[in-house]
Amino acid sequence: MTPIMSKSDAAALVIAAKTRKGLSWTEIADALDAPRVWCVAALLGQHPMSEAQAERACALLDLDAAVGESLRLQPARGIDPALLSDPTIYRFQEALAVYGPAIKELIHEEFGDGIMSAINFKVDVRRREDPDGDRVVVTFDGKFLDYRW
Amino acid sequence: MTPIMSKSDAAALVIAAKTRKGLSWTEIADALDAPRVWCVAALLGQHPMSEAQAERACALLDLDAAVGESLRLQPARGIDPALLSDPTIYRFQEALAVYGPAIKELIHEEFGDGIMSAINFKVDVRRREDPDGDRVVVTFDGKFLDYRW
Amino acid sequence: MTPIMSKSDAAALVIAAKTRKGLSWTEIADALDAPRVWCVAALLGQHPMSEAQAERACALLDLDAAVGESLRLQPARGIDPALLSDPTIYRFQEALAVYGPAIKELIHEEFGDGIMSAINFKVDVRRREDPDGDRVVVTFDGKFLDYRW
Amino acid sequence: MTPIMSKSDAAALVIAAKTRKGLSWTEIADALDAPRVWCVAALLGQHPMSEAQAERACALLDLDAAVGESLRLQPARGIDPALLSDPTIYRFQEALAVYGPAIKELIHEEFGDGIMSAINFKVDVRRREDPDGDRVVVTFDGKFLDYRW
Amino acid sequence: MTPIMSKSDAAALVIAAKTRKGLSWTEIADALDAPRVWCVAALLGQHPMSEAQAERACALLDLDAAVGESLRLQPARGIDPALLSDPTIYRFQEALAVYGPAIKELIHEEFGDGIMSAINFKVDVRRREDPDGDRVVVTFDGKFLDYRW
Amino acid sequence: MTPIMSKSDAAALVIAAKTRKGLSWTEIADALDAPRVWCVAALLGQHPMSEAQAERACALLDLDAAVGESLRLQPARGIDPALLSDPTIYRFQEALAVYGPAIKELIHEEFGDGIMSAINFKVDVRRREDPDGDRVVVTFDGKFLDYRW
Amino acid sequence: MTPIMSKSDAAALVIAAKTRKGLSWTEIADALDAPRVWCVAALLGQHPMSEAQAERACALLDLDAAVGESLRLQPARGIDPALLSDPTIYRFQEALAVYGPAIKELIHEEFGDGIMSAINFKVDVRRREDPDGDRVVVTFDGKFLDYRW
Amino acid sequence: MTPIMSKSDAAALVIAAKTRKGLSWTEIADALDAPRVWCVAALLGQHPMSEAQAERACALLDLDAAVGESLRLQPARGIDPALLSDPTIYRFQEALAVYGPAIKELIHEEFGDGIMSAINFKVDVRRREDPDGDRVVVTFDGKFLDYRW
Amino acid sequence: MTPIMSKSDAAALVIAAKTRKGLSWTEIADALDAPRVWCVAALLGQHPMSEAQAERACALLDLDAAVGESLRLQPARGIDPALLSDPTIYRFQEALAVYGPAIKELIHEEFGDGIMSAINFKVDVRRREDPDGDRVVVTFDGKFLDYRW
Amino acid sequence: MTPIMSKSDAAALVIAAKTRKGLSWTEIADALDAPRVWCVAALLGQHPMSEAQAERACALLDLDAAVGESLRLQPARGIDPALLSDPTIYRFQEALAVYGPAIKELIHEEFGDGIMSAINFKVDVRRREDPDGDRVVVTFDGKFLDYRW
Repeated sequence: MTPIMSKSDAAALVIAAKTRKGLSWTEIADALDAPRVWCVAALLGQHPMSEAQAERACALLDLDAAVGESLRLQPARGIDPALLSDPTIYRFQEALAVYGPAIKELIHEEFGDGIMSAINFKVDVRRREDPDGDRVVVTFDGKFLDYRW
Repeated sequence: MTPIMSKSDAAALVIAAKTRKGLSWTEIADALDAPRVWCVAALLGQHPMSEAQAERACALLDLDAAVGESLRLQPARGIDPALLSDPTIYRFQEALAVYGPAIKELIHEEFGDGIMSAINFKVDVRRREDPDGDRVVVTFDGKFLDYRW
Repeated sequence: MTPIMSKSDAAALVIAAKTRKGLSWTEIADALDAPRVWCVAALLGQHPMSEAQAERACALLDLDAAVGESLRLQPARGIDPALLSDPTIYRFQEALAVYGPAIKELIHEEFGDGIMSAINFKVDVRRREDPDGDRVVVTFDGKFLDYRW
Repeated sequence: MTPIMSKSDAAALVIAAKTRKGLSWTEIADALDAPRVWCVAALLGQHPMSEAQAERACALLDLDAAVGESLRLQPARGIDPALLSDPTIYRFQEALAVYGPAIKELIHEEFGDGIMSAINFKVDVRRREDPDGDRVVVTFDGKFLDYRW
Repeated sequence: MTPIMSKSDAAALVIAAKTRKGLSWTEIADALDAPRVWCVAALLGQHPMSEAQAERACALLDLDAAVGESLRLQPARGIDPALLSDPTIYRFQEALAVYGPAIKELIHEEFGDGIMSAINFKVDVRRREDPDGDRVVVTFDGKFLDYRW
Repeated sequence: MTPIMSKSDAAALVIAAKTRKGLSWTEIADALDAPRVWCVAALLGQHPMSEAQAERACALLDLDAAVGESLRLQPARGIDPALLSDPTIYRFQEALAVYGPAIKELIHEEFGDGIMSAINFKVDVRRREDPDGDRVVVTFDGKFLDYRW
Repeated sequence: MTPIMSKSDAAALVIAAKTRKGLSWTEIADALDAPRVWCVAALLGQHPMSEAQAERACALLDLDAAVGESLRLQPARGIDPALLSDPTIYRFQEALAVYGPAIKELIHEEFGDGIMSAINFKVDVRRREDPDGDRVVVTFDGKFLDYRW
Repeated sequence: MTPIMSKSDAAALVIAAKTRKGLSWTEIADALDAPRVWCVAALLGQHPMSEAQAERACALLDLDAAVGESLRLQPARGIDPALLSDPTIYRFQEALAVYGPAIKELIHEEFGDGIMSAINFKVDVRRREDPDGDRVVVTFDGKFLDYRW
Repeated sequence: MTPIMSKSDAAALVIAAKTRKGLSWTEIADALDAPRVWCVAALLGQHPMSEAQAERACALLDLDAAVGESLRLQPARGIDPALLSDPTIYRFQEALAVYGPAIKELIHEEFGDGIMSAINFKVDVRRREDPDGDRVVVTFDGKFLDYRW
Repeated sequence: MTPIMSKSDAAALVIAAKTRKGLSWTEIADALDAPRVWCVAALLGQHPMSEAQAERACALLDLDAAVGESLRLQPARGIDPALLSDPTIYRFQEALAVYGPAIKELIHEEFGDGIMSAINFKVDVRRREDPDGDRVVVTFDGKFLDYRW
């Protein structure tokens, strides 16, 4: 019996295969018929894939069955804290530090006491063209959950 | 000479006045002719207000000039770390832990090596109606900045 | 304009009044017609009270209107980290350290990929008599939320 | 002489065998005639198993004797801190942050000065059906220990 | 209504009174008919005193009723982390770092899987004369609790 | 040239040998003619052994000379911080948090300004029978050192 | 006897006076005949001022002698850690994280083993005009110190 | 499929080759026709290289294609926290602790509310001869970005 | 009853009096007939003074009896962590990081297994003239304590 | 191409060779004609050795050229934080916590505003005989550097 390949080892092999084959995440997500951010997150180890999705991913990327077995496993979710200071990710942390309490005030004003779910939730990343320089637009879209005893 | 009132003392007085007068953040933002998230963030101490904005805010909320002087001051920006575990704010932290690396991959795929600016940047919070429960939609919209020597 | 009394100052006055009047939390919760754990948490500053609840609490405890105004305010939720090492609270931390991953496995086995909500959620504390020494039984009861894009 | 297999290596092999054989934790616990949460925790390395239990577990899962030797060893208990931010586990942390001091108040009110034992203690995870969405019910049940000099 | 005096304010007044009256902890413990370490810990805020003990303490130390009210209150237990590096306290930390795992091994060898209770527990500090220099002897004495489901 | 085996690798081999041979720490300490806690601590890597002790330990446990070379090496002392939250060890931390300042007061009252040495120091762990449940008695016994310029 | 006003209280009064009088840091530095960054740092509490400088500063800003006494005091230097995440300051932290090891390599290549002094050291901040947007140019200029036994 | 070599493994091979061939960073940067600090940072793993640059670097240093593949990969940027206390790097941290708030004041005075970009940014390290000992001059040069909604 | 003045408040008054009277630490230590470093440390709150010393200090510095009462109190020793990054103190931290393990090796080589006492211990700070720039010479001088069971 | 052996691997081999050959650090330092603390620190990885020193060290200790190559490399300096709690090293930390601010006061009184250099710096460890027990005397000797713009 050998242990199941770790999610981070599987992710490293996915990235190696994607790089060497010259595939984009968009092409991979399309091939798996999955939303882009969800699909990248799942291949990086944050969501379990269905058997069909894992097989299609391995076929597309020429990865063997051990990678697919890993992709199907229920993950323990989270981020390596070192990554939070990568500048591309940090700007979101900074925006949250500057605007988080204001966002909280407006959620309570609009919806009452509760939260935006991070489980019944989706994210989208897209480009918005702008003559002063194109913009990154990231949308967090989660069901409102009110505090309910 | 007395020190300028701290931004957090000014924010506490703004919240007291807003609560007692029964005003909403939206009404305050409209009266100041300012974007909602920006306006709440500024009143909580994260942006300096212009003299005109600070005066209008104090007039609307019946606050005296010392509050206005504080609102105009250049802030040191940031969040009390204890607030990051408030559930309404934490869900954004959690979403960033789960999806941050995927968002980073997609920004690089779409734009190349760089970041979404958190300075040339705006946020919007709105409600999207949904038969399965209304949703909180928060949009982060920042200029793309490529690494450029 | 004076700032609204802080939630921790209000809680200190609630505890002083409760102690001096010899009331139990159960009596207070009954008088407010509220679940016990919810009621104590709200009086300690973790939930906003309705105007009626705050008024009834102040009347029962002979506290003035400034306390009631504080009790109605939307809170920033969380715990002073020093309290997490109080032995009575720490045992729950320890149980979570020992059994948390096992609980996670069983939630996924029974429900699939998702979480127990801490928002649509209630807790109960009760005594179970036992000849070998009575037992503290704490029930966490939250709606299952599945990861849903 | 070779060192005894680490508890985490043994747990990884248990999970690999369980996954590949398509067994549930409930089936494993039944086969070992052990309470479910206890059994999962023990197989993940938080409790020492008796020789009989370890042998039955290895036989059921086709694991060799080195795994059984590891399962019988006295553990050093605790959790990888990174796991505490996995959303399924984190919600218990959050509930403790919001309700911990209230639970402490009610334990003292009902029992006097003391704690719920985390040693003479059991946990149960079960599903409660609910038309508004089924619920996760986790019960912590520990002997009350009063401070006694 | 005024809040109850904090345990740390009460402790500061106890120390001031003890110092100015030239009383020793031993004299105070004798007057209260309480074990020495327990009594000092209680006066420093780590245990609630009974009404009789609190009254006797205040009478002995000429402290007013507000101190007594504070001494009777249920405490949140714990230590200011800064105190852990005071050299007199730190040596116990160091001894635990050097000998903790050995103590754990011997508890398990002698008693099986379980712990020394820190609740059903007492401590004693005494001097042992020794020609090479007198010794501090601190005895931790707690009921063994075995892991029991 | 090969590096000397690490103290933690040596300790893992000692534990493997002890377990497989069914020896107790007490039997090992007797065979080495060493105090029990000292002996366990030394075999776990916290004290250097003399050549004779290391040889006797290796002979008793059938370990080869590389283990003995490691046991003789001067250690860097300390504990893996993760171990401090193992419940059996944590209770000593908790007792120190609750009673540390009281112990400090009583050391100063009895001896004046100074500390209990953790170097000229010994620990003993023993069982005290008690009809209400046997007790773990751990005695810290260190030379008093007064602050002396 | 009253304590000397703290450096942070003095800095708060300097900022209040500067703001209300509409003076710039450059005007203040010119009036004190001191380098700009040094002068701002000293007024914020990071350098002791000479008696003459402190007097001139107080005269210019209409501050009383207690502020001058504080400005002359030898400081304990350092920054409130919360300020390090202010975006304007954080970008320097980030640049150091990205380029620090490269800067270290080049210092060693050019000068050998040693450091840039932060004591025999000066900083300058200036604007460089650029058609693509003006630039902030910050120059760190410190004496090279080689490791010398 | 094998994973792509990690950036830190590639950097270790670059340093080994550079050392054994006796090349300076300046010679390498010249051969790659790249700015010195940028080039060192890229070879240490903080910037992705173009295919041409990576090939030239491998040719110059006799490294095989796996190193080049790693050098071209998009990095996760950041520094090992242990490196921040290396004395050569720490002096920059210290200068930031002492002068950071003063630099912030002067940026705001000169440019208004905003930051120096760390993305549209370059650094230079050079020697300035000085009769009292040559000086290390490090220039941070980044585009000013004003807060703009 | 009023609490005893805190050690840090007493130290602030000592520094105010010393500054306003233009006394040096050396003059104060001479007047108290005490070693210089000991005396400064005691006045800053790290050692209890005898009644005679406290009285002489108050008389010399024109401080009232409440300061003397505080100076005589047994301290809880330690340093504000923020002070450890003050550059004058930090250099000792850095020297310990660079040379600590070497010092440990040489203590063990010269004395065997044990430590330099920090209790039976004295420190001296002096100037050594040097044509290349005078030197700060700080001598730590503590009794060797061997590990002794 | 293989990476250069890490400094910590080289140090482990130096210690293995020194132990097996029965050499003292003093003998090694003498053979290398280097100051003792400097020499131990360099062999433990904190200073680069010259080619001649590295060769002599390898010859004396029978280590191969790969060790010498590592010893010559420019180090990243610093200490494993776990080592700071080793009792022999910790006592220096404790002395710094108790006496650091007093040392800072006396440096400023004697030399003015500045620091003791940790770069132009040497340390010595020696034994001072004393009838009450021999003493460890550690001298820190660094050039005074005054704050100079």
